[in-house]
Amino acid sequence: MPPVGHLDPRFIALMNEVQTLLRYAWQTDNPMTIPMSGTGSAAMEATLANAVEPGDVVLVGVNGYFGHRLVDMAGRYGADVRKLMKPWGQVFTLDELREGLETHRPAVLALVHAETSTGARQPLEGVAELCRDFNCLLLVDTVTSLGGVPLFIDEWGIDLAYSCSQKGLSCPPGISPFTMGARALEKLNQRRTQVANWYLDVSMLSKYWGDERTYHHTAPINMNYALREALRLVAEEGLTACWERHQTNAELLWEGLADLGLECHVEQEFRLPTLTTVRIPDGVDGKAVTRKLLDDYNMEIGGGLGELAGKVWRIGLMGYNSRRENVEQVLSALKEVLGDSK
Amino acid sequence: MPPVGHLDPRFIALMNEVQTLLRYAWQTDNPMTIPMSGTGSAAMEATLANAVEPGDVVLVGVNGYFGHRLVDMAGRYGADVRKLMKPWGQVFTLDELREGLETHRPAVLALVHAETSTGARQPLEGVAELCRDFNCLLLVDTVTSLGGVPLFIDEWGIDLAYSCSQKGLSCPPGISPFTMGARALEKLNQRRTQVANWYLDVSMLSKYWGDERTYHHTAPINMNYALREALRLVAEEGLTACWERHQTNAELLWEGLADLGLECHVEQEFRLPTLTTVRIPDGVDGKAVTRKLLDDYNMEIGGGLGELAGKVWRIGLMGYNSRRENVEQVLSALKEVLGDSK
Repeated sequence: MPPVGHLDPRFIALMNEVQTLLRYAWQTDNPMTIPMSGTGSAAMEATLANAVEPGDVVLVGVNGYFGHRLVDMAGRYGADVRKLMKPWGQVFTLDELREGLETHRPAVLALVHAETSTGARQPLEGVAELCRDFNCLLLVDTVTSLGGVPLFIDEWGIDLAYSCSQKGLSCPPGISPFTMGARALEKLNQRRTQVANWYLDVSMLSKYWGDERTYHHTAPINMNYALREALRLVAEEGLTACWERHQTNAELLWEGLADLGLECHVEQEFRLPTLTTVRIPDGVDGKAVTRKLLDDYNMEIGGGLGELAGKVWRIGLMGYNSRRENVEQVLSALKEVLGDSK
Repeated sequence: MPPVGHLDPRFIALMNEVQTLLRYAWQTDNPMTIPMSGTGSAAMEATLANAVEPGDVVLVGVNGYFGHRLVDMAGRYGADVRKLMKPWGQVFTLDELREGLETHRPAVLALVHAETSTGARQPLEGVAELCRDFNCLLLVDTVTSLGGVPLFIDEWGIDLAYSCSQKGLSCPPGISPFTMGARALEKLNQRRTQVANWYLDVSMLSKYWGDERTYHHTAPINMNYALREALRLVAEEGLTACWERHQTNAELLWEGLADLGLECHVEQEFRLPTLTTVRIPDGVDGKAVTRKLLDDYNMEIGGGLGELAGKVWRIGLMGYNSRRENVEQVLSALKEVLGDSK
């Protein structure tokens, strides 16, 4: 069938549906909740491109790969970037964040809710209150949390967030959730400079996603249909049930790993249910194991990045893949492969 | 089936295949020929983001909507933008371009090969020689020409080009061809400033698409498979046969429109075979006609943009849709609807 056009009334109805479902998944009433027409890094760049003006101080919590990416991106938009550093796999306390805000007085505080590179979950309760005290926006990476980990954009006072389609939402990659609250929109509306990115400029995108329906760029039509369906499945299961399923299966995995004598890298309190980092035992060739899992078991687990390169495996249990049978499969495959490698 | 990962050996083999097929479709040997992970405007922005440094003079040929977009985008990257203007539907002569280069001495000349808003085809033979005389890069919009209109990136000496997937290639929108030749890469390598766009930074993307296979962003996996298939169909038909089919069907359309007493907006010599602008006859409500075609005939034809708003319809015959039966259908539908509206 030929796809419908990006201004077809049927597609416009679909756009409304995608926005409504996305607001549910993120627990927000933000009107400016849309899918960006690229993969997760595009939505990530969109938050910074729209929120940052040259010279703005942006404070980034860096405790993994994606914190570094936020630093890199913010710098390209002329931000005066400051970093709060933590070893990979740890998270920031409220006291550490308060101290950072006091020291740097940023216009934007950027944190990674779910660090895909470490498997750590940054607690966000109370952070927005701090940000309001210091008159700064709270920008949050929810790439590996949306759909899989309890997350409340409005209740937690998050001003800007981005995610991807292919993790908790189980949609193909190629479209990426983005949301922007009233305080962030106010900063956008008061910019002295143009947004330094045409494709991701919310001041123009809002006219396509708003009542005007003014053409900006051709939307990835089919990806929008895919995202709608993925979001409908989340809504059908129910967000709370979805979160609980992720938590239950992750705990099964953690128990099974312990039974195999394997150790998780992140403290249980801050461990993501969607992504588990497992320490590679001494004397085991981590890459040989992932290669064998892919070749012989058709199962992909990730290697470590940055500080954790060569030190951990990363096991994802996200969206549709968070299933008891997958936990059992990965545990039994790991048992066999590690047994062989001894 | 679960999609393969963006570093899976099977996906890397697919990436190579996409590049090879894309080079064929564009008739180029440029190693840096890749699909950008967004729709056509993303690849458009990628050409400027990588080629332009703040203060560079960029001369844009503006004879339609997308010339204006190039101006807007180039400005966001700090270019000193100059414009060559022509009424919408006309094209630039070599003499006019030479005069422009003499006057403005740009670092980049940007032209639209196939103006989607007007249906005009900008001749490009001889332009590269001019650009070399003036030591400037030639950047070309081939959104509505790739796959449908004779186009020779290397033979014509084009340094940078972009396109989209959903026109001449008949792929869903969401991924966008990009190519960059040696002279443009040299300018990139000699930049004094970082590329002001993370997602589209070729200095990083080249490490993912090159031998290193270093992770940059998650590629839109499924869209890459779609593009591979679309490009295979073009290769199966053969590029020359494909161009001839577009030309034959367009001429059929033009004859049929003349039989209906309708006039094309662009001189035949410069008319695109992929997109025809038809002047709306006096007294006819153009919007009512397009609405009726969509509602009653399930057929989408575009309205005019900018200078041509309310003045023309735009009929696309691109890729799979460039078929004799589609020409016959649109002519018979137009005949009925225009008959009714008299």
